[in-house]
Amino acid sequence: MFSIKVRNNIFLRLLLHKDAKAFFELMNRNREHLSRFMPRITETKSVEDTERVIALFLKQLSENNGFRAGIFVDDQLIGIAGLKYIDWLSLKTEVMYWIDKNYSDKGITTECVRKIIEVAFIQYNLNKVIIRMSVDNIGSIKVAEKCGLHFEGINRQDEMLSTGFTDICVYSILKEEHFKEVKILLSS
Amino acid sequence: MFSIKVRNNIFLRLLLHKDAKAFFELMNRNREHLSRFMPRITETKSVEDTERVIALFLKQLSENNGFRAGIFVDDQLIGIAGLKYIDWLSLKTEVMYWIDKNYSDKGITTECVRKIIEVAFIQYNLNKVIIRMSVDNIGSIKVAEKCGLHFEGINRQDEMLSTGFTDICVYSILKEEHFKEVKILLSS
Amino acid sequence: MFSIKVRNNIFLRLLLHKDAKAFFELMNRNREHLSRFMPRITETKSVEDTERVIALFLKQLSENNGFRAGIFVDDQLIGIAGLKYIDWLSLKTEVMYWIDKNYSDKGITTECVRKIIEVAFIQYNLNKVIIRMSVDNIGSIKVAEKCGLHFEGINRQDEMLSTGFTDICVYSILKEEHFKEVKILLSS
Amino acid sequence: MFSIKVRNNIFLRLLLHKDAKAFFELMNRNREHLSRFMPRITETKSVEDTERVIALFLKQLSENNGFRAGIFVDDQLIGIAGLKYIDWLSLKTEVMYWIDKNYSDKGITTECVRKIIEVAFIQYNLNKVIIRMSVDNIGSIKVAEKCGLHFEGINRQDEMLSTGFTDICVYSILKEEHFKEVKILLSS
Amino acid sequence: MFSIKVRNNIFLRLLLHKDAKAFFELMNRNREHLSRFMPRITETKSVEDTERVIALFLKQLSENNGFRAGIFVDDQLIGIAGLKYIDWLSLKTEVMYWIDKNYSDKGITTECVRKIIEVAFIQYNLNKVIIRMSVDNIGSIKVAEKCGLHFEGINRQDEMLSTGFTDICVYSILKEEHFKEVKILLSS
Amino acid sequence: MFSIKVRNNIFLRLLLHKDAKAFFELMNRNREHLSRFMPRITETKSVEDTERVIALFLKQLSENNGFRAGIFVDDQLIGIAGLKYIDWLSLKTEVMYWIDKNYSDKGITTECVRKIIEVAFIQYNLNKVIIRMSVDNIGSIKVAEKCGLHFEGINRQDEMLSTGFTDICVYSILKEEHFKEVKILLSS
Repeated sequence: MFSIKVRNNIFLRLLLHKDAKAFFELMNRNREHLSRFMPRITETKSVEDTERVIALFLKQLSENNGFRAGIFVDDQLIGIAGLKYIDWLSLKTEVMYWIDKNYSDKGITTECVRKIIEVAFIQYNLNKVIIRMSVDNIGSIKVAEKCGLHFEGINRQDEMLSTGFTDICVYSILKEEHFKEVKILLSS
Repeated sequence: MFSIKVRNNIFLRLLLHKDAKAFFELMNRNREHLSRFMPRITETKSVEDTERVIALFLKQLSENNGFRAGIFVDDQLIGIAGLKYIDWLSLKTEVMYWIDKNYSDKGITTECVRKIIEVAFIQYNLNKVIIRMSVDNIGSIKVAEKCGLHFEGINRQDEMLSTGFTDICVYSILKEEHFKEVKILLSS
Repeated sequence: MFSIKVRNNIFLRLLLHKDAKAFFELMNRNREHLSRFMPRITETKSVEDTERVIALFLKQLSENNGFRAGIFVDDQLIGIAGLKYIDWLSLKTEVMYWIDKNYSDKGITTECVRKIIEVAFIQYNLNKVIIRMSVDNIGSIKVAEKCGLHFEGINRQDEMLSTGFTDICVYSILKEEHFKEVKILLSS
Repeated sequence: MFSIKVRNNIFLRLLLHKDAKAFFELMNRNREHLSRFMPRITETKSVEDTERVIALFLKQLSENNGFRAGIFVDDQLIGIAGLKYIDWLSLKTEVMYWIDKNYSDKGITTECVRKIIEVAFIQYNLNKVIIRMSVDNIGSIKVAEKCGLHFEGINRQDEMLSTGFTDICVYSILKEEHFKEVKILLSS
Repeated sequence: MFSIKVRNNIFLRLLLHKDAKAFFELMNRNREHLSRFMPRITETKSVEDTERVIALFLKQLSENNGFRAGIFVDDQLIGIAGLKYIDWLSLKTEVMYWIDKNYSDKGITTECVRKIIEVAFIQYNLNKVIIRMSVDNIGSIKVAEKCGLHFEGINRQDEMLSTGFTDICVYSILKEEHFKEVKILLSS
Repeated sequence: MFSIKVRNNIFLRLLLHKDAKAFFELMNRNREHLSRFMPRITETKSVEDTERVIALFLKQLSENNGFRAGIFVDDQLIGIAGLKYIDWLSLKTEVMYWIDKNYSDKGITTECVRKIIEVAFIQYNLNKVIIRMSVDNIGSIKVAEKCGLHFEGINRQDEMLSTGFTDICVYSILKEEHFKEVKILLSS
């Protein structure tokens, strides 16, 4: 259905009601892996719960407040990525993503995040894209750095994980930085 | 943004808040042409009204009740097509579409409708797709026939146009007919 | 309480909260008989469910979208009849009805439907009244024909019954036809 | 449409959307007369406002919280009467009514109120019916007394009229009193 | 948190979500004592129910429709008092209160009610304050009389207690009476 | 009405509907002064708008999501302070405040913020209190530092002021830091 092409056979595709089963199974396969940095994933306990999550994703889109889409390789759902919210007063947004453990370390997340940053600056015409992650989430830090985001600082004890409070790294890229980088890429 | 590829440079793309201006201008360019068979189009009088229409389109999608998407040639919005509703009890739906007068008679509508029928039977797994149009809407009758729909009958004085009541043609295609036809196409 | 007199001791009476018990018992006595053509009746499983159904009936009336009323012989509830919706854009409506199996074949349904058609054309000033039923619902076809409706056509596999998809007969009567018929009746 | 017969050609009939014009004109003819004891009547300034009032009347009925109906002589709307609310915890209600000045002093109000009291005790099975009116509203006091209600007391400065605060008379009749009276009437 | 000082260590304090446990325990300790005149207290059966009750108290305040606050001695919750509603058309309100049985007969309720009456006349600028209680609730009658309210009358069988219908005493004080009394107090 | 005592004659008091006039006038006197760092203040253009703002403040409290209260010197409203939100998952909150220009530089804001921090840690039992302000808002930076918050970092171009994007300072204090500091204060 409705998708944004990332590369060849990789797509960001809006999840619909009919995708609830595949989405729930993806979460189940990755529950242990994901619950470390996403403790609330444990609240989605059935296909019915997952249908409600999908409805919330679409509601977010319809309210012009960002989106969460499935990461697909061909027709297989392997992760979720999107914009957690859009702050239309300050023209900023925050990227979120997670991927099946069997597909991590293949660069797919990085490419999806690059695409989403492009959507934020070009389609939504925003001024700032943020990524926030636990200081212990090395994989996510690498993604942010590969996507050209700059380290802004650390927010102390800023999120509660299942293991207790964690300090949070803040990364960001500004519109002016994004277009400078794109120009360099194009001219090289 | 999120789109379904129809052919080469033709896409069905979800309209977002940011598309309101282009959508309103498309309606303005076609107001006279469209108001004959779509009298309610006159209710959308400004970009703000159009933003509300787009929000309703996305709400429909989020409620799993069909969708209305923009028809795009490359990045230009030239029409609207989609599923007016989905009757999940009886597994049926109704296709709707309209196109800029400068792009009619080029087969674009037909290709979009074919794609939407495929979405209805394959993605949504429905049993019946309906198209309804005024007996005077020759263009729309041709689209339905080219897409393989069968004439079911005429509903007398069934819709109010700006010129008064009109009789409505009902066309439909069943899942079993769709797959038989696809098989013939594939085997030929 | 609030009622429309059909004939002598036959009334269409609005159901109130207090009628839930009688309504639920009526459904229970006719569950087998009704579930063939009204598969969703199985969803109403208790007096509490029935109270919610009655609240929906009254909400429909308050939204100017038709009504569903009880068919009463004196103070006994023996069926339900009304207008499923009112399409105020195209000035059309659809009649619905069902009756206790012990009271069928007595002409009561036909008289109630005649009264409802009169309400649609005279009180609501509509242009078209539709009745739709399964091709296998011989009783209902007879009611439509006795009430002067005209056969419009058949919608293929248009509703899901408990036994699978059924073709649906469409009958209708237009305002001009109704008043011509009334004039003939009056002048004869 | 849906009505309760009071006597011969006098009915309490539910007001529908289509009655808004007649209802607004009735208020307009009686605005001066009514605004003394019903200061809020001045808030209904157009047929559109009146449609909203009618929708509220029907919403009240659908919420099982009493009703307000039109008083009709044949097909002419001449007043409003009903139950302001139903207190289902304490099984009590309050009757309200007003009538066109040309129809006052003809006993119509009294007969409607008697019918409504009967509805409260028999249809809704309540325990107490209250009528409250300004100490200056002699007409209304007479209606309460003719209908067999008993004087309970005076609530000081209890309502704001357009002329300032007014003391309010409280009249009531209990279920046991109603049935005793009915028995006397029947046995006499 | 947010409180109105009544005297020394006695406060009316808004209950927040965090007070649910203490509030529920207070109700539990007084359930037998309270259920005589407040039969609905039995509906609050858990801390979660109590959180919902507190949310309703705050919603009432946010809708400018009165308030219910905790009676505190230092930091201990010992009762509830407030304004049941505010009738902004007629500028009247009704005081409610109940207190832990171990703290009754100490004059605390009387002082809280005096403070609330002052709030009604001075902060909200109302015209009339009502207190209603069962004719059998001697304690509550004493509070009303000590606070300078005047007996208005008895409403027969006006509330349903767990023991059946009860007659209700109505007490009230008008703004003019309140300020006259305050002047006497100040000048004495 | 409901207030938290800060010191002597300084209170944080919940704003009610009746305070709308005083609140609107306070905004009007400080519009120029405030609009630099609070550009949205220009959206509140009348007493009616201000009533809606007050209703939102109370709704926030009733949803257990923080509060905004008036800063009062005796009975005069001179500013607003509170908790912008409460993140119950990560047990953190953010303090907000502004004060009439005639009362700035008197230490009142600092004392109010200290009280609010105490409320956050003791009443709400949170783990982290944040204050964020423009790098150009020297007054606000001083308040944060005087209240014992620690500088966490700068978020680049993170808010849109009327003069364009501004970098934002982030200050915070953790529960453990708050109680250590209190212990030092008490033991000294």
